[in-house]
Amino acid sequence: MNALTDEQIGGVLGLLKFDANGLVTVVVQDFASGSVLMVAHANREAMRHTLETGRAHYWSRSRKKLWLKGETSGHTQQVRELRIDCDGDCVLLKVEQVGGACHEGYRSCFYRVERDGAIVIAEEKAFDPGKVY
Amino acid sequence: MNALTDEQIGGVLGLLKFDANGLVTVVVQDFASGSVLMVAHANREAMRHTLETGRAHYWSRSRKKLWLKGETSGHTQQVRELRIDCDGDCVLLKVEQVGGACHEGYRSCFYRVERDGAIVIAEEKAFDPGKVY
Repeated sequence: MNALTDEQIGGVLGLLKFDANGLVTVVVQDFASGSVLMVAHANREAMRHTLETGRAHYWSRSRKKLWLKGETSGHTQQVRELRIDCDGDCVLLKVEQVGGACHEGYRSCFYRVERDGAIVIAEEKAFDPGKVY
Repeated sequence: MNALTDEQIGGVLGLLKFDANGLVTVVVQDFASGSVLMVAHANREAMRHTLETGRAHYWSRSRKKLWLKGETSGHTQQVRELRIDCDGDCVLLKVEQVGGACHEGYRSCFYRVERDGAIVIAEEKAFDPGKVY
């Protein structure tokens, strides 16, 4: 995704329906593999930064601050495609993920899967979280 | 996914962190293509029904009721895989989608995509919503 102009950014933001907390839900998918990597939230400012820079920004509900994904870990997300759902309250980002999306060291936050009625870990760690956080 | 026993269902539900409204976020992905189809919410009862029947159930926040996906349209979702994210507040369902997931007639709710700074419709309709709702 190329960086958007102010006018283009205004057009995209105008289609979004931010909730009572000023947030949209963001689903993040690996551009190459199609794996769902994580779910996060973005306010208007985070969406603007994403659209201006082409790098995924979110709003951290726990830390209550704008969050450039990868600012600590280096595990940035370059946005290759942006989609908006029918209601305008969810955004889908297809990204090139450096390292892993999950703070626990996995490529995807969805590393736990149901198998025969039990929830098991289905993936190898992509990095050692103790070394990057 | 096979229907789970009561004990297995209790095990899965015990890993989920329902929010202040008693909900988890559910991301729904096409099992065959990997396309993200929709984002919805589930309460404990909806998750239990999904795990018992293998068919996706949600909690409709607008109608404030349990919702078997496809109960009106016939566009049901057979769950083939269930994943839980690291925080336990998001569930990923990989489903076999009959017809389309979107009430506007598209296969996916994410039928709008950014192209050269504008948001455009990227998909053909899969069905006529006037005929199924």
